[in-house]
Amino acid sequence: MIKVGLVGYGTIGKRVADAVAMQKDMKLIGVTAHSYSFNTEVAKQKGYRIFAVGETDLKSNGIKPDGDINNMLEEADIIVDATPKDIGRDNIERLYRPKKIKAIVQGGEKHKTTSTSFVAQCNYNEALNKDYARIVSCNTTGLCRTLDAVNKRYGITSVHATMIRRGADPWDIYHGPINAIVPVLEMPSHHGPDVQTVLHNVEIFTTALSVPSTLMHLHTLTVDLKKKANMNDVVELFKNSTRIRVVRNAEHLRSTAEIMEFARDMGRLRGDMPEICVWEEAIGVISNTHNKLLYMQAVHQESDVVPENIDCIRAMTGFKDGEKSIQMTNKSFGIK
Amino acid sequence: MIKVGLVGYGTIGKRVADAVAMQKDMKLIGVTAHSYSFNTEVAKQKGYRIFAVGETDLKSNGIKPDGDINNMLEEADIIVDATPKDIGRDNIERLYRPKKIKAIVQGGEKHKTTSTSFVAQCNYNEALNKDYARIVSCNTTGLCRTLDAVNKRYGITSVHATMIRRGADPWDIYHGPINAIVPVLEMPSHHGPDVQTVLHNVEIFTTALSVPSTLMHLHTLTVDLKKKANMNDVVELFKNSTRIRVVRNAEHLRSTAEIMEFARDMGRLRGDMPEICVWEEAIGVISNTHNKLLYMQAVHQESDVVPENIDCIRAMTGFKDGEKSIQMTNKSFGIK
Amino acid sequence: MIKVGLVGYGTIGKRVADAVAMQKDMKLIGVTAHSYSFNTEVAKQKGYRIFAVGETDLKSNGIKPDGDINNMLEEADIIVDATPKDIGRDNIERLYRPKKIKAIVQGGEKHKTTSTSFVAQCNYNEALNKDYARIVSCNTTGLCRTLDAVNKRYGITSVHATMIRRGADPWDIYHGPINAIVPVLEMPSHHGPDVQTVLHNVEIFTTALSVPSTLMHLHTLTVDLKKKANMNDVVELFKNSTRIRVVRNAEHLRSTAEIMEFARDMGRLRGDMPEICVWEEAIGVISNTHNKLLYMQAVHQESDVVPENIDCIRAMTGFKDGEKSIQMTNKSFGIK
Amino acid sequence: MIKVGLVGYGTIGKRVADAVAMQKDMKLIGVTAHSYSFNTEVAKQKGYRIFAVGETDLKSNGIKPDGDINNMLEEADIIVDATPKDIGRDNIERLYRPKKIKAIVQGGEKHKTTSTSFVAQCNYNEALNKDYARIVSCNTTGLCRTLDAVNKRYGITSVHATMIRRGADPWDIYHGPINAIVPVLEMPSHHGPDVQTVLHNVEIFTTALSVPSTLMHLHTLTVDLKKKANMNDVVELFKNSTRIRVVRNAEHLRSTAEIMEFARDMGRLRGDMPEICVWEEAIGVISNTHNKLLYMQAVHQESDVVPENIDCIRAMTGFKDGEKSIQMTNKSFGIK
Repeated sequence: MIKVGLVGYGTIGKRVADAVAMQKDMKLIGVTAHSYSFNTEVAKQKGYRIFAVGETDLKSNGIKPDGDINNMLEEADIIVDATPKDIGRDNIERLYRPKKIKAIVQGGEKHKTTSTSFVAQCNYNEALNKDYARIVSCNTTGLCRTLDAVNKRYGITSVHATMIRRGADPWDIYHGPINAIVPVLEMPSHHGPDVQTVLHNVEIFTTALSVPSTLMHLHTLTVDLKKKANMNDVVELFKNSTRIRVVRNAEHLRSTAEIMEFARDMGRLRGDMPEICVWEEAIGVISNTHNKLLYMQAVHQESDVVPENIDCIRAMTGFKDGEKSIQMTNKSFGIK
Repeated sequence: MIKVGLVGYGTIGKRVADAVAMQKDMKLIGVTAHSYSFNTEVAKQKGYRIFAVGETDLKSNGIKPDGDINNMLEEADIIVDATPKDIGRDNIERLYRPKKIKAIVQGGEKHKTTSTSFVAQCNYNEALNKDYARIVSCNTTGLCRTLDAVNKRYGITSVHATMIRRGADPWDIYHGPINAIVPVLEMPSHHGPDVQTVLHNVEIFTTALSVPSTLMHLHTLTVDLKKKANMNDVVELFKNSTRIRVVRNAEHLRSTAEIMEFARDMGRLRGDMPEICVWEEAIGVISNTHNKLLYMQAVHQESDVVPENIDCIRAMTGFKDGEKSIQMTNKSFGIK
Repeated sequence: MIKVGLVGYGTIGKRVADAVAMQKDMKLIGVTAHSYSFNTEVAKQKGYRIFAVGETDLKSNGIKPDGDINNMLEEADIIVDATPKDIGRDNIERLYRPKKIKAIVQGGEKHKTTSTSFVAQCNYNEALNKDYARIVSCNTTGLCRTLDAVNKRYGITSVHATMIRRGADPWDIYHGPINAIVPVLEMPSHHGPDVQTVLHNVEIFTTALSVPSTLMHLHTLTVDLKKKANMNDVVELFKNSTRIRVVRNAEHLRSTAEIMEFARDMGRLRGDMPEICVWEEAIGVISNTHNKLLYMQAVHQESDVVPENIDCIRAMTGFKDGEKSIQMTNKSFGIK
Repeated sequence: MIKVGLVGYGTIGKRVADAVAMQKDMKLIGVTAHSYSFNTEVAKQKGYRIFAVGETDLKSNGIKPDGDINNMLEEADIIVDATPKDIGRDNIERLYRPKKIKAIVQGGEKHKTTSTSFVAQCNYNEALNKDYARIVSCNTTGLCRTLDAVNKRYGITSVHATMIRRGADPWDIYHGPINAIVPVLEMPSHHGPDVQTVLHNVEIFTTALSVPSTLMHLHTLTVDLKKKANMNDVVELFKNSTRIRVVRNAEHLRSTAEIMEFARDMGRLRGDMPEICVWEEAIGVISNTHNKLLYMQAVHQESDVVPENIDCIRAMTGFKDGEKSIQMTNKSFGIK
């Protein structure tokens, strides 16, 4: 049993905790809390041990912590750190390296923090037995999954992707915009180089912007291919790739909202959709003068990286068979 | 086993179907489909029998129906009809009465359609052995639950409620407003009289408006009381009333978004919150010159009426113990 | 000519500057800038003198300031301070009182800062020859205008108002909520006592919440009256009150969005609507057992306080005839 | 004086009417109304003659029409038809052609309806003395303006544009989405061929989607160039092109919301921004292996086509100097 501790219990951390608890080869040591909220109440309801970080208001709210973060570090083989940007990097130096404990950080950290950036179906082996690794961001994960499939089948000359990002997560009442489209005013954006930390040889330019929606990101991609493609083959390629789901206008899955409704209806925990959803009717191939593939995909920013964290735990603790790990993880999530 | 058929498989219908399937004393005969969509795919995944209504595109999309709606009516003891406004009324006359089958319609229908309007904890007995009954709307259900508790404890002189309604359901991409507040320009609004179909002697005036949000309705209430109240007693009253949940700013449940997140985290199916949520910190009592109770509540329009449908099935099929029915239903939903 | 300086050049400040520049009896000395933005560019286009506050980036962006804030204070008879909350209070003590310069602050400041809270049509005389006064907030201004008319005509026993507030101003891309209804979790809210700083004898309870819209606030009011009212009289009362506009469903003015469109179409500067808009079809009188008036009004948070600032300048600098001042101001805004 | 009649008095029609009224060489004969609303009240306030279309409710609402549409057609030299999709096409056949009156239709109509699709700075001469012409849609106009400049300077090999479209106009409370991103599920979208009705030789692929915002569309473009470009030259090119405005992050014009605020502050009628806004900081040139230009632009869907209508009126009525017409029109709008 791999003993896993969770540091940071927000959008990603709480999902990884639940996912660890579902794996037959893993044991959740506990989760951290630095202040009281409904998150803590739910962790308690689920029977997770709660370890305090710093001075907390847990006791005054009726929660008796099971120790502090150091107690958790003593018991864990590996930590998944899902704290906000830059804290994961600091925690490696301050907490995990001195105690010689393995750790995974998230996509808010820079590649150089761990030198290993991970998407299971693209580069599982790069994380094998590593002490530190980074799960790339939700957007980068989404780009890597579909581009890796396309690259292996057709070869990619270059990619241009536009990322239409949700403005804030569903629970977040503080951030906007309420009624605006907000471009990322760097050109090209930083997401392109981030993809290359996983798909090392794919040339990619990206542009990004934010919109007043909370549900999912949506990517539009234009890919210049080395080999000719046809639309049906591309549909089949995506259908046969793991953690990619082909969705259809014909099923009335016409928007990010309907995809989320579908996930809720299927009984997914929290209504999550960790698969990258590609619209069948929005796959286009231009093959007379050019050799271009166009497609659109929806990325569930809250959950697509969660199975990646699980596989990365296995890789870092020495489980050699990446495909097997992906299968085990998928089964626990109900992913085909 | 009570044999239940579901006619209308949208926001409410699909939830009632799942709830019926969870009850130990009920059997879901099947659900209807009038056209193909992801709803049909999910029904099939769940193993529900699908009965066609009219000419459908099911077969051309690979779904073989298990018969048509008449086949379902032959097998069912009672129908829950969750079709859009006015269709339920027509279906009673056209389908259910000729075949002498009991039926429940939803809050889009008028009171006079069935002469029995139902909220389990308020008037379970009114539906006992009835052939037809109406589950009142999500807003009316929310008002009835908390006002009934207040009325029984303190007596109500009169109520003014303002209902801030979500503009559209989460999956609905067609309806707005995107950026406006839209008042219901009738004064008082029709919701007041609708409450009186359940709480017959409560005087109530209501005003309503719509806003660009999809998650929950929010009600603000001012109640003139007959007996003096104090805040702590009111908190206890609500805590001890079924299908009401007292939520707290202290837990960071500060908005409809965070309540929905809480329901997702708890592992509720679809992230539903069938309980009416009252904010502890927004309960106010003014008791010098007046005798007023002020409070705010959040109403999950997609799910609060679902347990009501289940209890109403039991009442109409002769199960006499309303409290027992509520307990059985609550247990299946994970409601305390 | 009254010499007016503007400190704080945001949503309110820039509007008051333009309004001062339009008055025949006033001269705009200039406006302040603490950093470069499109606001500065527009001020320059309009020929306003720009006075720097602290170290600014104006020069590096090609704007040569006309001096610093102290230069402006030397030339001005009176300052309109439209800085964010608490800064106005500090500026009085730090800048205006030592230099014996009169000043108006805005509704973010507390009543006790100036002991004079102002809405022209309610209490013009209270500001006569005062050194410091406060223009109450947009919401309080809106409540005072219509309640004062009702109180003078019918007498008010008590008021309950629910304020549905826009989440952020139209230009503000940083604040949410994107998809939530957020109650103000104090009960009753602080807006009631604020009304009483202007309408000293009106008993009022208020509740408030925020929604994902940027355009206007919307208030629903229930007023217990001393004298009987009838609907037509109330419509006439509002039609004959200054800075109140009766709008109608019949004209397709069904929402805050359509009211804003109407203001744009009329050619109002910035599409502003400084009048409080009351919906004719949402005025209700309940006069059998009770003696209640119900109505709904829309409040343009960006502009309703702007004419108040102009009238307050006149009152504080000794112009005795409040009605005349209101007429002069209204004419410059195109308000009937 | 060119006598212009306006048929259709909605978002575009009311703006073209005001613009015609501002031109020294044009006379507005009047506008049409098919039903009463605040639009009619504003037209009356502005002193425009109102011509009824069909049976209307104008009289019962106190508006006496100045005749019917046929009376207007008799007086006008040319009609600007701004009716909804397909009605303009029908009006040509049913009303304008039989009466031999020239007419302009809008971008909802197909190219073949008039065989002349118009953007003044691209192809003014194509409309010279024509009887019928089409002003292309707001999105197509935006693409044509900047791409034409780029094409003339560098030559275009091919373009990929992603259009992030506002979900509904600011006044429209009926259409969503409230909280979703909705892709146009055709690939490539129809906007590409529409650009080619004006820029006949530019190869362009487009993808499109809608988001919950009301203010402006935003386009991201990737252009493969024939000649090498550098960033500063591109900035200068756009600065020196008419009806294109270079906006800057440095001015805090970081979003569609701030651009709209800027237009309001400048005192533009209705806060309109008919210029296409290109962000200086989002212009990127990739010129090692490729020869690509990337940029982002904001398009004000309510107003960018309005000056095009004015120029097209001049072209169709025989005014030969396109540049002069553009200057005259720009001056009346306050466009540099």
